[in-house]
Amino acid sequence: MSAGRAQRWVFVVKKGYQDTDTSLQSSVITKLKGVAFTNTSELGERLWDVADYVIPPQGENVFFVMTNLIVTPNQRQTTCPEVGRTESFGSQTPTKLGSVNIPDALCHQDEDCPEGQAVVAGNGVKTGRCLKDRDSIRGSCEVLAWCPVEKRSKPKKPLLASAENFTVFIKNSIRFPKFKFSKMNVLATNNESYLKTCHYSMEHPYCPIFLLGNIVRWTGNNFQEMALEGGVIGIQIEWNCDLDQAPSECNPHYSFSRLDNKFAEKSVSSGYNFRFAKYYRDAKGIEYRTLFKAYGIRFDVMVNGKAGKFNIIPTIINIGSGLALMGAGAFFCDLVLLYLIKKSNFYRGKKYEEVKSSSRKSLTSPTLNGSQSPDQLGGL
Amino acid sequence: MSAGRAQRWVFVVKKGYQDTDTSLQSSVITKLKGVAFTNTSELGERLWDVADYVIPPQGENVFFVMTNLIVTPNQRQTTCPEVGRTESFGSQTPTKLGSVNIPDALCHQDEDCPEGQAVVAGNGVKTGRCLKDRDSIRGSCEVLAWCPVEKRSKPKKPLLASAENFTVFIKNSIRFPKFKFSKMNVLATNNESYLKTCHYSMEHPYCPIFLLGNIVRWTGNNFQEMALEGGVIGIQIEWNCDLDQAPSECNPHYSFSRLDNKFAEKSVSSGYNFRFAKYYRDAKGIEYRTLFKAYGIRFDVMVNGKAGKFNIIPTIINIGSGLALMGAGAFFCDLVLLYLIKKSNFYRGKKYEEVKSSSRKSLTSPTLNGSQSPDQLGGL
Amino acid sequence: MSAGRAQRWVFVVKKGYQDTDTSLQSSVITKLKGVAFTNTSELGERLWDVADYVIPPQGENVFFVMTNLIVTPNQRQTTCPEVGRTESFGSQTPTKLGSVNIPDALCHQDEDCPEGQAVVAGNGVKTGRCLKDRDSIRGSCEVLAWCPVEKRSKPKKPLLASAENFTVFIKNSIRFPKFKFSKMNVLATNNESYLKTCHYSMEHPYCPIFLLGNIVRWTGNNFQEMALEGGVIGIQIEWNCDLDQAPSECNPHYSFSRLDNKFAEKSVSSGYNFRFAKYYRDAKGIEYRTLFKAYGIRFDVMVNGKAGKFNIIPTIINIGSGLALMGAGAFFCDLVLLYLIKKSNFYRGKKYEEVKSSSRKSLTSPTLNGSQSPDQLGGL
Repeated sequence: MSAGRAQRWVFVVKKGYQDTDTSLQSSVITKLKGVAFTNTSELGERLWDVADYVIPPQGENVFFVMTNLIVTPNQRQTTCPEVGRTESFGSQTPTKLGSVNIPDALCHQDEDCPEGQAVVAGNGVKTGRCLKDRDSIRGSCEVLAWCPVEKRSKPKKPLLASAENFTVFIKNSIRFPKFKFSKMNVLATNNESYLKTCHYSMEHPYCPIFLLGNIVRWTGNNFQEMALEGGVIGIQIEWNCDLDQAPSECNPHYSFSRLDNKFAEKSVSSGYNFRFAKYYRDAKGIEYRTLFKAYGIRFDVMVNGKAGKFNIIPTIINIGSGLALMGAGAFFCDLVLLYLIKKSNFYRGKKYEEVKSSSRKSLTSPTLNGSQSPDQLGGL
Repeated sequence: MSAGRAQRWVFVVKKGYQDTDTSLQSSVITKLKGVAFTNTSELGERLWDVADYVIPPQGENVFFVMTNLIVTPNQRQTTCPEVGRTESFGSQTPTKLGSVNIPDALCHQDEDCPEGQAVVAGNGVKTGRCLKDRDSIRGSCEVLAWCPVEKRSKPKKPLLASAENFTVFIKNSIRFPKFKFSKMNVLATNNESYLKTCHYSMEHPYCPIFLLGNIVRWTGNNFQEMALEGGVIGIQIEWNCDLDQAPSECNPHYSFSRLDNKFAEKSVSSGYNFRFAKYYRDAKGIEYRTLFKAYGIRFDVMVNGKAGKFNIIPTIINIGSGLALMGAGAFFCDLVLLYLIKKSNFYRGKKYEEVKSSSRKSLTSPTLNGSQSPDQLGGL
Repeated sequence: MSAGRAQRWVFVVKKGYQDTDTSLQSSVITKLKGVAFTNTSELGERLWDVADYVIPPQGENVFFVMTNLIVTPNQRQTTCPEVGRTESFGSQTPTKLGSVNIPDALCHQDEDCPEGQAVVAGNGVKTGRCLKDRDSIRGSCEVLAWCPVEKRSKPKKPLLASAENFTVFIKNSIRFPKFKFSKMNVLATNNESYLKTCHYSMEHPYCPIFLLGNIVRWTGNNFQEMALEGGVIGIQIEWNCDLDQAPSECNPHYSFSRLDNKFAEKSVSSGYNFRFAKYYRDAKGIEYRTLFKAYGIRFDVMVNGKAGKFNIIPTIINIGSGLALMGAGAFFCDLVLLYLIKKSNFYRGKKYEEVKSSSRKSLTSPTLNGSQSPDQLGGL
């Protein structure tokens, strides 16, 4: 019967007899390992290690692994055309670029570039000059900015493709304050060598070291694709502990999902990238910088969980209300009797007669109880 | 009646018939756009772009926009007076400053500056010398520190006042794992050009691009004031979805509030600022740095929400307990009468007789109530 | 009686008569103060201030204080042996080191170092050469990396031991949106000077300035030990406010706990450290860097809380279900019948007669039901 089912649900599924602690205290420490070698025109031969590609460096629960980047070296504060002629002039004419990317930087004469005005969605403030090629009628406004400005072309293949083989060590310590219960996702039994060699998988559910490539695969994505555009991946660690059992039964359960919208592939809202710069001073103390537009994968480690332990109070509460649930039964019966059954008029009559009888002195009321019959008999 | 009202409340207001998922999975990506031009004595003409004023650079759900700063260039590890004589000597005498800001650095003779002792709330460790001006009797302890030390004067107007016109693109993807429902705050229907031009407002509730100036205004604050001292602003994104309706009905609701205490204007606990440095090496490889005391606005994007979907279990629970509110009594009475009382067989008999009686016309039923007795009597 | 106990529990302990708001809005701003002086072989005399040892600099709710570090200065992109011969050759022979730390870098001839292969758990990619000492038969693969590679030795005592005396100012503003209630952990009554001098303690429960040493002590740990290996400490701020009382009664409660597993002292999973680098350019524009392996203490400030205020709805719900627990219905009916109706004496009489009747065999009980009337008639 419905109430009974609900009752069973409350107890078996919801563990209604337990007191639960959902205020999980958790700390996550992440540590990446791996190096990548690249050979590009801008940077030449270069080796990337943890200090280069992990941002921010302090291994917190959110970390970003750079998998692709656009480098704009030796930028200085000076003037240059808003639209990247300086480096990719042959390939892309400023006019075309300008019209496509930064309409606001497009100009026919100097009047189109009011001095001091910032270029909308651009890199600098206009100087008042319109830079044109001899042949073309349209040009690009000159701007005061970090020059040369960044090129708008993106590599077709991820630069740090080998990031797929990087590993991350996720160290998660939790504590349920109410029950004074602490545990780690690193099994105490694990020996050093095991932790140096193992990788998390179905076979090694308690190894806290993950291959980035696997993590991405488990979310149903292709690492190389994701490395090109960037994205965000969530690593859920769930601690669902029944502390009435042995502590060894309380283990983390990992799940992986892509958090950003992968379907918006070619839209403005696809991927994940950001810009940062390294600042230098030359011999004369003039500042210059190297601008990086970094594409990559951000990993969010999210820990949640709850613990349950037998406690008398919730047990009583649930049993009590459970019983109450079945008390409803009586009410149901009446419902049935009063409305659902043919020929119930008779019963209804009786039902309410009884109530009326108590509200006003009625003739029928005496008949309710034999003790009055003597009078009646007397009245005969 | 009270129980009835509560019952209605449970169902209509609390959607008691739905199973809810509050374990929202969310990812936030933020991207700022805008440039600012400044012209100061320390820095000269300078253009600030995203890589300069956004800290940290990786667009997470918490980001800081620098709106004002105190720059202390070319600091080196050497000795200097704790109190800023080096740069603003005429304006502020060390004695006055010392007494006001850093009492611990105040000295009359060298004995007041024990060597190796750190200056409380200061910038360095004392060298043991007390630096005095010819005329004054009080001076400032000499310290080993990053010299020259930072000036204590703050600009009267925000340096990057134009940050008011910067825009931030907030990309929020959410997922309700229990219902396998995903959505983004960027409408799929939006075309590129719309997303390049629109700004969030009453007219454009689904445009995810916000003017910083508007955000601050909506919290009831003045951007220029806030830019001077700094502050913290919360951007709440709420997803409250009834998944029994169409997915298009599940939309984010934005709200903005100032999180730090604006009323503590002139107190120690007003505003928001922090210090960071850029490190350089000179030709001889000696390290020096530029210290920045950055004032600005920190934005915390907080996403929360819940989704509801019809489910039979909670419906039963709530109906049940609702009914129980009104029906339980009968059940308890029966319990007492049926099981707890000696010699209750007799009553039990009646009890069930009654039920039977109402299901089929039985001879015993009349006997239940005196109103039939006339017939009986008549039958005599 | 059990239901009664539960009922009392619901009301007194759980404040069942209050509407609660658990959606706390909180902002945390942290600011460290203090300087440390060190004198090491690598760095010489050096003074560390906030900009040097706080990572990240923007004072958010999670901040890291560097207490120990391994510095590897002047790294350049070139080739060198994977195992640190360059600096500590005498002390540690590569073979020994290799076998202990990086088995993959161990080699007997060049074939053991396939070109282009990354060293597992190493610092670079192999160049194909095996570097051996004249006498030894085993050597270390040569790698392309940031050279020289980091030494594997750790200082025996924390470098910034004096971090124990650093202070942190934790500014926490909260808001309960449902009740439009805001408060700060900085008492408005506090005067500047008090906030400049006070330290949080049993005597000063409302001073928001904490000595790092104390925080660590309160978690039951030794600062100097923790400073050596690093660790994570949680600072819980709990706001548990009964808004039926005066706002001044709503105060934060601080608690401190170590979040990482201190017991895994000597294991791979002990402590907290990460690597970061500062990048420079030499006169010829060649990039080089200083690598830091930073050990230290990460502090997570976690704010949670809830507020309660009297509200009629939950009161009804709880009273209702509470009563239901005990069979309220019957009670209600009786209430009506016994006290609210005129001329109910008669029913009351019956009521108690009935109860008596069921407790002891009484003459009246038969009269309850007409089925006995035959006997009565028979008795005529």
